[in-house]
This record gives sequence, C-alpha cells and structure tokens, in this order.
Amino acid sequence: MFIRNAWYVAAFSSECNSDTPLARTLLSERVVLFRTPEGRAVALEDRCCHRLAPLSLGDLEADGLRCRYHGMKFDATGKCIDMPGQREIPAAMCVRSFPLVERDSLLWIWMGSPELADPTKIVDCHWNHAPGWPTASGYIHYQAHYQLIADNLLDFSHLTFVHRTTLANNAFPNARPEIVPMDGGIRLYRQILDCEPSPLHAMAGRFKGKVDFWNRQAWWLPSVFENWAGSVDAGGDGPPHERPGALHFRHFSLLTPETEKTTHYFWIQPCAFPHGDDSVIDAVGQGIQTAFAEDRWIIEAQQQVMNESPQVRPKPAASDAALNRVRILIDKALQQEAQGRATIPVVPVQEGV
Amino acid sequence: MFIRNAWYVAAFSSECNSDTPLARTLLSERVVLFRTPEGRAVALEDRCCHRLAPLSLGDLEADGLRCRYHGMKFDATGKCIDMPGQREIPAAMCVRSFPLVERDSLLWIWMGSPELADPTKIVDCHWNHAPGWPTASGYIHYQAHYQLIADNLLDFSHLTFVHRTTLANNAFPNARPEIVPMDGGIRLYRQILDCEPSPLHAMAGRFKGKVDFWNRQAWWLPSVFENWAGSVDAGGDGPPHERPGALHFRHFSLLTPETEKTTHYFWIQPCAFPHGDDSVIDAVGQGIQTAFAEDRWIIEAQQQVMNESPQVRPKPAASDAALNRVRILIDKALQQEAQGRATIPVVPVQEGV
Amino acid sequence: MFIRNAWYVAAFSSECNSDTPLARTLLSERVVLFRTPEGRAVALEDRCCHRLAPLSLGDLEADGLRCRYHGMKFDATGKCIDMPGQREIPAAMCVRSFPLVERDSLLWIWMGSPELADPTKIVDCHWNHAPGWPTASGYIHYQAHYQLIADNLLDFSHLTFVHRTTLANNAFPNARPEIVPMDGGIRLYRQILDCEPSPLHAMAGRFKGKVDFWNRQAWWLPSVFENWAGSVDAGGDGPPHERPGALHFRHFSLLTPETEKTTHYFWIQPCAFPHGDDSVIDAVGQGIQTAFAEDRWIIEAQQQVMNESPQVRPKPAASDAALNRVRILIDKALQQEAQGRATIPVVPVQEGV
Repeated sequence: MFIRNAWYVAAFSSECNSDTPLARTLLSERVVLFRTPEGRAVALEDRCCHRLAPLSLGDLEADGLRCRYHGMKFDATGKCIDMPGQREIPAAMCVRSFPLVERDSLLWIWMGSPELADPTKIVDCHWNHAPGWPTASGYIHYQAHYQLIADNLLDFSHLTFVHRTTLANNAFPNARPEIVPMDGGIRLYRQILDCEPSPLHAMAGRFKGKVDFWNRQAWWLPSVFENWAGSVDAGGDGPPHERPGALHFRHFSLLTPETEKTTHYFWIQPCAFPHGDDSVIDAVGQGIQTAFAEDRWIIEAQQQVMNESPQVRPKPAASDAALNRVRILIDKALQQEAQGRATIPVVPVQEGV
Repeated sequence: MFIRNAWYVAAFSSECNSDTPLARTLLSERVVLFRTPEGRAVALEDRCCHRLAPLSLGDLEADGLRCRYHGMKFDATGKCIDMPGQREIPAAMCVRSFPLVERDSLLWIWMGSPELADPTKIVDCHWNHAPGWPTASGYIHYQAHYQLIADNLLDFSHLTFVHRTTLANNAFPNARPEIVPMDGGIRLYRQILDCEPSPLHAMAGRFKGKVDFWNRQAWWLPSVFENWAGSVDAGGDGPPHERPGALHFRHFSLLTPETEKTTHYFWIQPCAFPHGDDSVIDAVGQGIQTAFAEDRWIIEAQQQVMNESPQVRPKPAASDAALNRVRILIDKALQQEAQGRATIPVVPVQEGV
Repeated sequence: MFIRNAWYVAAFSSECNSDTPLARTLLSERVVLFRTPEGRAVALEDRCCHRLAPLSLGDLEADGLRCRYHGMKFDATGKCIDMPGQREIPAAMCVRSFPLVERDSLLWIWMGSPELADPTKIVDCHWNHAPGWPTASGYIHYQAHYQLIADNLLDFSHLTFVHRTTLANNAFPNARPEIVPMDGGIRLYRQILDCEPSPLHAMAGRFKGKVDFWNRQAWWLPSVFENWAGSVDAGGDGPPHERPGALHFRHFSLLTPETEKTTHYFWIQPCAFPHGDDSVIDAVGQGIQTAFAEDRWIIEAQQQVMNESPQVRPKPAASDAALNRVRILIDKALQQEAQGRATIPVVPVQEGV
C-alpha cells in the first residue's frame, strides 16, 4: 500500500526519449514513458487495453505509441487513434495516462487522482545541474521496501558503522538532530563543531584540519529526502552554513516504490566547492555511490530478515525519533487516503534559497 | 484447468526410444515416455508408487522400467512386476498408464478417462514427412498459457506488426477471414488476391511478382491448429489453392499444456514447392523458427502483464472474432467435463485430401 | 514443524571462529555462530532486536558482536551491552541465545526450551578424529526435507540401485535387518556372510576374496544416524564385528533441518583399517562423497515430485519397516511437543564402546 496522491520521480529526464519507450513499474503499476516528437514527456499505463500486451514493446510514431502485437495506436492522452482493420474505434478503447511534469531534469509522476495533481506541490530541486552547482547523480535499484530506505536516511547514527570509509564521523551517534515539524514532513538540524571531517567532506572540501559541520535536512512526504550538508573550517563566527569558504552539498534522495519489496532510488548531489575546482565532482559522485552501496548491502539484508519473520517488531532506540515521526505521518496519510481524503500535497518551501 | 478428454501431442516420435526414458509434464502431470524393445511407445505416470521418486530417472529393461531408487519394476501397463526383497506384489502396487498412439511421426496421449480414448478422433497429420512433402518441424517451450498462443494463431491481424520480416503482408489487418463452424472447432478461410507475397512465401515459392494468397485453416479443440496456406502467381482462374504451380504449406501447430503458465508447442511444416527444389525446406524451417520466436517474445510479455494484473479483462476488437469463438467452445467443453460429460471427440475431417 | 527439544549439529567446530560470524538457518530460524576471544562457541538469534538487521554481518569485538547497522553490541548471552548514543539500555534490548555445546569437534545446538537442554543427552561421537581413527568428514546442502534423507538411511535396499559403483552389494534387498526398539530410537542389525564386498569396503579393507559383512546401526531421534559397519575375511569364528582383522567404519550422518524443504547434512566417517595404512582415508572420504551425491540426486528429485503432488501418499513395501518405525516415533514426539511435553531426550548408550 502506497500513498498515491503525491509526486514521485519516475525517471531522470535523460532516460526518456522519442525513439524508444521506457518501461518502468511504479507503485506496483506498469508504466511506459516516452516523448512526443515535440519533446513532451508522457506516461501511459504499460498495458494495451486490447489484449494486454506491454505497450513498451511497441513503436513510437509521430502521433503516438503503436502496440507491437495487433497495431493499436495510442496518443499522448492514452486514447486509441488507430485500430488496424477496424474503422470505428470505441471510446472505451483507451489506456490510462498519468500526469507527468518535467522539472529540474527530473520527470515527476502522479499516480493518484489526476484532478489533484498540482505541479506547484513538487519539491524544488533547482540546484540539479544548475550553473555554479556541479552535480553528480545516480540510480540504484533496491530489493527493499522504500520505508526501510527512508528509515536509513532519517537516522544518521548508522554512518559510523555502515560508512566507515566514506561518510563516517565518530560524533554521529551522539549528535542527535533537532527535529522540527513542518507541513508535509519534518526538518532535521544537526551541527557538529570542531570535528574531524568525514572522508568525503575532507576530500571534497580539501580541509586541512578540523571543521564545523552541518546537516539541514527535510523529509517531504512520502519519499523525498533533502540533505543540505556541508563543512567549513572550524572556529568561525555565525552558523557554519552561512559562513564563507564552506563546502555545500544540496543532496536529494528521491525514492519511488516499484513494488512492496523493491524501490527505485534516484539521487542528485549538486555541490559548491570552496576551492572552486569543480573537477572534484566526479570523486564526490564515486564516494556517494560507494556509500549508497554500503547502505543497500545492509538494508537488503534487513529486508530479507523481515521477509522471513514478518511478525517480529523492531525495538525502539532513542535514535529512531525522526524515522518514527515520518512513519507515523505516512501511516496517517495512508489512512486518510483509505478514507478517500488526500492530504499530502503542501507547497514545499526550501531553506536557504 | 484443462480439457482432459482429448488427444494431445506428447512428443515427436523421434524423441522417444527404448534406451532412455523421456520425462515430460503434460496437463500439470509428470509423465514418462519410453519404448518397449519391440518399439511400442508407452506413457506412464512419472512417479513411483512406492516412495514417489520419478521413474524417468530409472532404467529400461526388456520387460519394463525399473525405478532407480529401490528397484521396483513396472511393465508397459503400469503394473509392478518386481519388488526386490519381496515375493508378493500387492495389486495396488501400480502406476497409471496413459493411452498413447503413434501416428504421423507424432505420439498422441490421452490424459482423460481411458475408456473414452478413441484413436479415430486424432487429427490427420499424414503430410508430416510424407513422400512429396518435405517437412520442417520444431519444438518451442513457452512461458505462457496455451490459450494465449491459441489467440495468436486465431488472429492473423498480428502478422503485420509482429512478423515484419517473415510472415507480414500489409493486407492482413483488413483481410478478415470467413469463419465457419464445424464439429469440434471452427474453420477459417482467408484469401488475398493480387498482393505482394510475404517474405517467407516469396522465398519459398520463388515468386517474381504479385500472388494470390490463401489460408484454409481449422482449429480442432482443444489445441490443434491446421493452416493450409499457399500462394500462386496472381491472376489465374479458379480458387488459388486449386491452381497448378502453387506453393502449399500444410502447417500444424500442436499445443500441449505443460502447466497453467507453460506450454509445449510442437509444429510441423510439410511443404509442396512449385519449383520442385526441395532443398528450400531448410530455409522455410528457419523462417518459421524466426517468426515463432517473434510470437513467443510478445506472448510471454503478455503473460507477464496478465500475471501481474489478473483482474484486468481485454477489450474486444473486431479481429478477435475467431479467437473468441474458440474461447467460448473451450469454456463450454470445460463446463461439460466439470459436469462429468466428455464432448470434445469428433472425427476430424480434413479438407483437400 | 520440527522437534525442537533435541540436540542438533549446528556446525563443525572448525567452521566457527572469533574473527568472522557464521550465519546459518536452523529449524527455519536464523542463527549466528561465533567464538569469544577465549574460544567458547556461542549461538545467537541472527536478527538485531533494534531494526532486524542480521547480526552475522556485524563485527566481533572482545566482549561481543556489534551490529553493522546502528552499532548495538550483544554479549554471548544475547544481552545488549552498548547502544551508541544512548546511556540507558532497556532490559528488553536483547536477542535470544541458544544452548550450544562443543563436543567431538561438533557444535551441538538446542533450539527448544533452554531449561531442558541437558548435554548428557548428546549422542557420543568420540571416534571423530580420535587417535587410531582416521576420519573423513563432509557437509552436503540438501534441497529436501530431512525425513526424506532419514528414510534413505533407514532402508538399505536402495544401495543396490542408487550406489552401483560405491556401496552396492547385491545381497542388500534380501538382507532384511533385525529391528530392535530402544529408548530414543531404534537399532538395526544386518549381517551378510560370505558375500562379495561392496566396492568401497573392498578398496578400504583391501580384501582379496569374500567377506562377512555387518551393519550395527542406531537411529537417535530426531536425526542422528549411526552406522557401525564393517567387513572381515569370510569364514571366521564369532560375530564378524568382534573378529580381528576387520575393517571398521564408525559412520555418523547428522541431519539438521534448515527449512521445511532444505537440510544441512553433516557426516563423519572414522575408520579403523585392518592393514594399518591410514592413507586410505582420503579415498574412503571420496567414495562417501560420491555415494552421498548419488543419494542427493534421487532424493531431491523425489522432493520435487512430492512438492508437485502433496496429496499423494507412498505405498508401503516390506523394506520400509525401519523407516516407518522412525516416522511413527517422530510423529509421536511432534504431537507431544505440540501438547507441551518434551520427550525426546534419553541418554544415548553406544554399542561396542
């Protein structure tokens, strides 16, 4: 069961073109993505309504996508506009189309009630490949429910144990974040002054000594995690993230459920480097990939255990505070949807913009 | 759920010998096929009644098949004739045997009530490897229910889209067949005059220009498809299939359910070539294999979609007329079997014999 | 459903160390095995109670096993002794620990009620790697329920058909064993005088002519099979196993259910060779491996058949007498456990010690 009335990332813009349809299962539904010759991105149900062949095996033509089986052609709204060998096309001959918005080099899909789809409710990711923001990005296919990944992102006490060579900082387990409720999610603030930088920050910022470190995070329901993180030489005046000479990461982890046990994980990592040498971005991207592979290793193992013992409940630790807040919010939203009410969409307001 | 009181192809004759038992699951039951030293083909339940080991792992001896586990030996009727270490053999110590008829280089099995098994009800495939009929043949293992394959064979509007380089003829979607009811199935007649030959017909018949093309097809319940197809130079007198100088295919597609989601697909393609150069048969066989691989690609994808959305129903098109007729006949036969009545067997009468 | 109040082999001693935790599923539960720095072997539930990650991915420290996810550390009793970032550790923060006894180079685990775990009830395997007893041993992972393997070990009539090149002796099907009830299982005695030795006995004992052969076996519930087997030159006085110049095998097959359809099969083969050339042990070990691979081939096929036809019951043969006795004892023990009574443990008394 997933929150349906919400915007999810369906793909990176670069994955979708007008030559080859892209098949992707989202929220347990088969979707086919493609572009019109004019470049508009489109998302249709990936199941021909005639005899249920996947449309993603079909051919893109100027005015639509033609099924490879019996040649039914569907336009960008999902309407059948050609039935070979049949002059009259019944109105019922159509497939579902999904609201799809291209923004910040991402394709955002709405799998709920189309009339509720409001593009102003999409989280702002404008740093993605923006001028002055060299950006690494990547995709991970996960054999785990998206909420296990959310748990991971909402509890940084794991960094010390899972990410020894990348993101670890021994102060993490004791550096409880401040948790601030907000419309549509929560914010997390964490600051560690006068600490050794993590290996990734040290490399990316070329810090020689200790740093003042910050996380300014937001979790936007259901599954957008923003992590404005950074470091600056220890000891300056004012909040670290407002000081000059700082390393800034404007990271987003964008989770889209594929099925109840698998997840599409898109991430973008726009950076601002204090030294101005943007070539460091490749090493940052590799560091993130390494770290996220470490997460995947432990989370998929956790999912396996949970598959085998579905009745066993976790026992709470103090460090679960943030993840439990988000779990409660998601449960509440699911209940509201089950009662026919859609409550997720709020206009996400960014910090430091 | 399958129609049981019917003849199905269990194997090509050439697959069955007296040295090595052949294991094959048919209608969701494990069957073992072998020949007696005299060459008679036999089909037994592939499960030793003693401790349920598969008999197909056993050894063929002069008078029967001996289980490889504890050495019970069963004769061609399924009766246990040796129990090592035990003098008295209880009458209950036997495995089921199935009526099996070898005809036209095919082994036909009857999985229903043995007393209803009447070999005169087997479809005539005498063209198979008959003198003057060079024959290509093949086997395909399908990850799909046999009725999805039946649907495919009963609607040639797909040829234009699935078989561009082999069987396609742009006139197909508009060339509705005449559908004629018959005892035990339906007949389909299609004729396209003055058309470009399909790539396969052009190659096989060495046609230089346009042709008159025909299909004279029969669907014998539950799952035998006969396709007497051919082409002849366009413009002659009389029905194309009666004119001299024609290319004749006496194709049979013989479907046997393996399980609810897999199928054994046997096909034979006896040909008569107008040019008399029978060496063309190899290229015809390759063309059929290529075309059937194209079908398998789309049909297995269709099965996948249906597995994931079992509640979704196809929406009808005019081209579904024949396949819907056969689906109705199969449903009716299944209902009758469920009520204890067996109604399939009729004596199949061939055309043009 | 398995008998839980019993000792099972969890691992060979050599598999368990203080550097790397060993993950193993036993009786459908995930268990992690490791040694303390002092060398004591420990078995814990392999599921962190915090967020259910497998502890076997964690790190061994001087005083316990630390979870790789959020760093909870558990001591050898399963008690959490460190929660990073949290001073108070709730008493409920613990994982289950299992009684584990190291004896005869084997680790024996008790998965039932800990208060019933009595190490005096462990079967004596002291021959394993004992002086004068060169020993081969091995492990087989089986895709079959352990009772199908038990059936196999309790009916040697299969030797003639499954083990032609290793253990076969044509007299086996007619050499019914004497079956003697005992506390906690049954004993089987079999003696074949003046017979050709099996290929394995001939090789191991370097016999030139016929032999007198014996099996003195015990089945200890639920799943320990002891086979004191041997051969001696035919024709001497007294029982073969008491004569000088005999080949002695003190074989144990130690079965531990992994899941309802898979089994851990540990075996040890301590030998005494009449010729005193202990280098033969390697060839004996290879012979056993070959023979047990033959068993696995037929038993896994049998399991496959049973999976597909769960309603079909075996039909009895006279040779099933011993296996049926053990099946009845196991069913009775399962019923008693279901009623809250534990009846398996008896002190196993060895013969010929």
